[in-house]
This record gives sequence, C-alpha cells and structure tokens, in this order.
Amino acid sequence: MWASRELVCELLRGFYRLGWVSGTGGGICGLEAHDRLLLAPTGVHKERVLPRDLFVVDPVNGAVVERPEDPLLRPSECGSVFREVIAARGAGAVVHSHALSAVLAADTASGRRAGRVVIAGFEMLKGIRGLTNADAHAVPVIANTAREPELVGDVAAALEDEAFGAAFAILVRDHGAYVWGEDVWEAKRHAEVYHWLFEAARARGR
Amino acid sequence: MWASRELVCELLRGFYRLGWVSGTGGGICGLEAHDRLLLAPTGVHKERVLPRDLFVVDPVNGAVVERPEDPLLRPSECGSVFREVIAARGAGAVVHSHALSAVLAADTASGRRAGRVVIAGFEMLKGIRGLTNADAHAVPVIANTAREPELVGDVAAALEDEAFGAAFAILVRDHGAYVWGEDVWEAKRHAEVYHWLFEAARARGR
Amino acid sequence: MWASRELVCELLRGFYRLGWVSGTGGGICGLEAHDRLLLAPTGVHKERVLPRDLFVVDPVNGAVVERPEDPLLRPSECGSVFREVIAARGAGAVVHSHALSAVLAADTASGRRAGRVVIAGFEMLKGIRGLTNADAHAVPVIANTAREPELVGDVAAALEDEAFGAAFAILVRDHGAYVWGEDVWEAKRHAEVYHWLFEAARARGR
Amino acid sequence: MWASRELVCELLRGFYRLGWVSGTGGGICGLEAHDRLLLAPTGVHKERVLPRDLFVVDPVNGAVVERPEDPLLRPSECGSVFREVIAARGAGAVVHSHALSAVLAADTASGRRAGRVVIAGFEMLKGIRGLTNADAHAVPVIANTAREPELVGDVAAALEDEAFGAAFAILVRDHGAYVWGEDVWEAKRHAEVYHWLFEAARARGR
Repeated sequence: MWASRELVCELLRGFYRLGWVSGTGGGICGLEAHDRLLLAPTGVHKERVLPRDLFVVDPVNGAVVERPEDPLLRPSECGSVFREVIAARGAGAVVHSHALSAVLAADTASGRRAGRVVIAGFEMLKGIRGLTNADAHAVPVIANTAREPELVGDVAAALEDEAFGAAFAILVRDHGAYVWGEDVWEAKRHAEVYHWLFEAARARGR
Repeated sequence: MWASRELVCELLRGFYRLGWVSGTGGGICGLEAHDRLLLAPTGVHKERVLPRDLFVVDPVNGAVVERPEDPLLRPSECGSVFREVIAARGAGAVVHSHALSAVLAADTASGRRAGRVVIAGFEMLKGIRGLTNADAHAVPVIANTAREPELVGDVAAALEDEAFGAAFAILVRDHGAYVWGEDVWEAKRHAEVYHWLFEAARARGR
Repeated sequence: MWASRELVCELLRGFYRLGWVSGTGGGICGLEAHDRLLLAPTGVHKERVLPRDLFVVDPVNGAVVERPEDPLLRPSECGSVFREVIAARGAGAVVHSHALSAVLAADTASGRRAGRVVIAGFEMLKGIRGLTNADAHAVPVIANTAREPELVGDVAAALEDEAFGAAFAILVRDHGAYVWGEDVWEAKRHAEVYHWLFEAARARGR
Repeated sequence: MWASRELVCELLRGFYRLGWVSGTGGGICGLEAHDRLLLAPTGVHKERVLPRDLFVVDPVNGAVVERPEDPLLRPSECGSVFREVIAARGAGAVVHSHALSAVLAADTASGRRAGRVVIAGFEMLKGIRGLTNADAHAVPVIANTAREPELVGDVAAALEDEAFGAAFAILVRDHGAYVWGEDVWEAKRHAEVYHWLFEAARARGR
C-alpha cells in the first residue's frame, strides 16, 4: 500500500507515545508512489509533524521533489540510510527508532558476536515476514558514526550479508534501530515486533 | 452480556495501549448471540480493527456465518483454541494476549513444575471468579507449537485437568496467554487481573 | 472543595491509566456535602463508571441515601474503611489503590519493622500536607484480611497510633493502599505523591 | 520562539503523562516576550493548569506583572531558580521535572564525583545543542535544600562552572532536574533528551 501524508504523521504520533522518537530523534519514510518518498524533516518534534511538513524525495538519488512551504525545514538526515534500505531490500517504508530498548539490545552483542544479536524462542518472531517461531533470527549490529549518512557503508554491508538475509532490522550501537517493510503497515508491524523482541531478549538475559 | 462489534473493537484499542496485542499479535472473540461468535481477522493491526472487519463464526464448528466485505481478510488463527475454551468452559469471550509479562510468568515454571504457575498471596486473586485472596491459584503452562491450531490438544487437556478447575487462563510458553470469562466484561476483568498477577509474581520472584 | 459526580468519574479514568484500579479493583469516595458521600459501585470497571452509577451514602453510618437506577449495582466494599478514615481524620475523600507499587512497597516492611515503611530523603515528601523534605515519614502497614470490612479494626488502630499521625496513607500488605486528603484534590495529590514514593523507595532499595 | 499560554499548558499535560510533574510537583516557565515570563502557579495539578491560571512575571526581578483572576493562586516557588537560569544562560524557557529517573540518575554521582554525572556513548547526546555523540557530557548535581529559593546559590555556582559550560540541565539530588533551552521548543527537546539519558545511564549502570 502506498503511504499517505496523514498516515505518516499519525504513525509518528504513535511512535512518540511508545518512546521511539523522543527529543526530535528517530523518524520514518514511506513511498507515496514508486518514485516519491515521503520523508519527515530533521530536528523537529516528531509527534507534531503535519502532513504539509513532509518532504517528497526521489527514492533513488535523494533529490528533493517537493518541499514544505516552511523554508526552515530540512529533510531528515536519515535519508541516505533509508534509500539504501529501499534499494537493497525493495522496502516501501523504513522506521528509525531511538528507543532505549534497541540500544540495550545492541549492548547484549559483544566479543566475537559483537556484530549480531540472535533472537530465538518467541512466538512473536512469526510477526516478521518469512519467519517461524522455531527460527534463530540474526539481527545485524553496526557501530555508530558521527553523522547518520556515514552509517551507509555498514548498513549496505549488513544488507548484503547472507547471514542477515531474513532480517528486517539493523541495530546501531548506542543509537537505535532501522526497521523496514514492504509498506508502512508492514514497517509498523515489524517495528512493534522487533521492539517487543528487544525488550524480551533483555528481560530473559538478566 | 452479549458482545457487540463496537465493544470488541474498543477493547482491542485498550489492549493495544496495554501492550497485549502489538505487532498484529493477540486478539479477542466474544459471543454476539449463543450461535454467533464475533472474531477479529488475522494479521491486522488490532487497535485499528473496525466493527465491519469482524467475522461471525459458528462457535461450535467454526464455520464462517458472516464475513467482512474486505475479501482479503481471513479469520483469526486463534479460532480453534477460542472454540475449545468456549466448549469446555462455557466461556462467552476469550482474550488472547501477547504481553511480555505473560511470557515471563510462564518462564518461572520449570523442572517438575514446568506445567503450572502457582500464584498466591495477593488480594487481586479475588478479581477471578470463585477465588479468595487465601487461595493458591494454579494456572496451566503449555508448550508452544508451530501453529496456533496445534495448541488445541494441550489446551483441551489443561481445561480437563482438575488441578486447573479454578483457572480462567492458560499460559503458552514463549507466546502469551489465553484468558476467558462468561462474557466480554468478565474476560476483560480476568485479563487485567491475570496480567497484574503475572507482573507481581515476577516482581516478587526476583 | 466538595466532590462532584463528574470529577469522581474523571479521576477514576486517570487512576485506571496509572494502573491503580485495574481489574475492577480499587476505588474512590468523596464528600459531595458534609452528609453525602459519593461512592463508586463494587465489581465494575472503574474507568467506565458514569456519574449516574454512583451511590450517595451517609458518611457516618453508611446508609444509602441515593442509589443508582441500575438495580444490579451495589456500593463498594471499601465503604466501611472509607468511613473510618473520614471519621478519624476528617478526610473529605479517600482513594483505594491496587497499584503493584503499593504492594511491593509494603513488602519492604519486615521483621521488627513489619508494621511500617519509613520514607525519607525525597523532595516529593513536601507534596504531603505538613511534611518537609527532611522528614522521615512513617506509613503504617497492616495485614490483609479475607474481606475489606474486616480491615476496619487495623485501620482504626493505625489511625489512632501517634507514630502515624503525619500519614495520609495506609498500606495493606498483598493488597494496595488507602490514601486520603481533605478533599478530592488533596486526595489525588497525595495519591500521586505516595505512589511516586512507593516506586522510589523500591528503586533505591534494590 | 516566544511561548504562548496555550502551549505552556499543553506541554504541562504532556509532562504529566511522562511522569515528570505528578503530585503538583515540577513546572515550567517560558518567555512570552523579552520582559514577560509566563509562570505556572504553585501547588496546583500541573496537567490541569489553564491559560488564564498563568502568572506573568518580570524575568529580571520576579515582580508579578499580571496575575490570574483566581486570588488563591500564587506563583511557582521555582521562580527564582528559573530567573537565575534565564539570566546566566540566556534561556527562554526552563522545565522543572520531578521525574524519578532524574533522582535515580543523581544517585549515581558519589564520592569524589558527587557533584556531577558524566554521560557518554549515546547518539541522543546530539539532541543537546552543541554536542556530538562523541562527547563526555558533564551534568552538575547539587544538593537539595529545604525550600526551592535556597537552591539559587548552588544553581548559580553550577552555571558559572566552566566544567558545566555545555550543560542545559542541573540535577538536584533527591529532588529532580532543571532543564532549559533558548525557547520552549528547545527546552522540551532538551528535557526529552535528558530524561532518555537519565534512564539509559541507569539501565547501563546496573
């Protein structure tokens, strides 16, 4: 399903209530058409974004196709990561979360396993497209960088790594997570499922 | 009291806020009449289910009596478990929760006691029909299966087991819980009470 | 300030969101006039109580002065405890909470100190009438009983005990708390402050 | 951006939902013009403050410029701390939080480091003006006092201390935090970011 401006804003309000986009962090993008990607502005209170505040960018090269009237708004810094996920996985929407549970889940990856979190033993895994509740699900963990566009290299490597072929999420250490789906609805479902799993993995790990 | 379509949808919104049905998981059914069971569709965002999205199924054999206009909707996978509870216990409504607290409560059952969680020492037990706050209340814990209809055998066995004659809930390991009552109101009350007890048992157990 | 039916119902909805009155547990009473005590019915979902569902009882002897139209409603079981607090302390409103934090706070009282929780070292103490943030505040802890009216003896003893002269709350082991104030507003403030302190005392105690 | 009465009240409702201003504690101030500081009244339920309930005070000397019609309302006790922050840092708005997470974060400062909490290793640091995610961010921790105006001396000292030149927050032991920004929007963002960091620092510290 194509994303609408209203839906993107409504989802941001929900993500705020869940603690995923506080302090203007985090965000979302969604394809409004195959060549039009709706993108929230950077540095704004995400629960207050209005339909007219969204950018439309080209999902291939990131060029701004339509911009909001407000001349002070600039497109989200996550744009290049979002486009990498769309290109590599055919995603139609990507959620960027600053949830503490994502940061703490990444913390559980250490030593020789610093590059992944493996989640197993939960029915909720079935909420991720293609998985059964018997799967051991590997989620890549990449290092944080000074600026978000610098994440693109490690994001691309994780997306190409066969070990993570079943993953719809990338954890960024000290930072949060990117979660995607074929459209905004699947991205929302995956985001809820992964956050549940992040909490669960930590609760069991104690 | 018979369930209404509006009430079923309103309760799902409340369950979502409580974290019981995130990621399209969990659900609810309720008898609209003695031969008509309202049932949410599978794979949808439960907080967004509309009255017109509900199925009406035969509570005895599960045959679809009325279906939503939207041809893409399919009835919840929980249907066969729901009907087993209705048949064995005369329930009028069943809540299926994917709350993390239910999964963690089931984790406390281990060794020779892997098949049950015994909860005692809480006033809240009086919120379960037939119990006093002096009761040691045994809740069955069954193993998870690949697909929900495969739970029916263990659900039926738990429902027939005299040790669990006072229970209005079944914990499914790694998965969540089924909680029921004579109607949607009692199922809601029982669901709130059991989730409180799951949290409490874990908090005391640490 | 005298309580109104609308305000009592609105506060119950807020208490539900805070997890104090889930599963039909807990409640509130407030004086509408010096001889008319508004009292919620027992066994109902507290966040759904409507102004017309409230009882008016005599705050001295508990006689029902006005009853709701719905003949199935019965007045809250807490009535006799509420009246004891009103009589002994001149309270104008009493909140009964089933919050897990209250139960866990009572758990910290043990051994020779089983009858009290002493809270100190928090600015929030100033939210309780008469206290400074330098006070060591003793809150009585009484044992639970089979039925709520049986709490009255221990409630009365705690209210008469000079050691608890500064307290506006009584913890009931395994059960929850009663919190009061001169009117519904002070009872609400005290309830929020005490619940904050219950959480804080536990978080520091770990 | 100048603060409006409506916005100040709306933010207070949001802070209440987040648990920062329960039990009438905490508050906010914001400049409506360079010489008019909007200030909430003391001792009231902060989520219920209406635009007409706000005081306008002189941000330099604290003199009341406009007062609410309700003669019982008195200006917040935080006023002198708020004005100190405005004078020393050119802040346009200050949030005062009674969040438990702030109190527990201050608890982690002890021994030779009792006067500060140093937060590092989080992307969320970028939500604080001037910081990168590579910074080790020092937040001052001051002792609590009997009354809020008595905090002013230690607040002033912390604001002058070069070690805390990058800080937009002061933790008050056993009490909470003051967080500010150039206007209400930045103060809100900073407050959300700092509270996230307080939670995160504690979660990692366990």
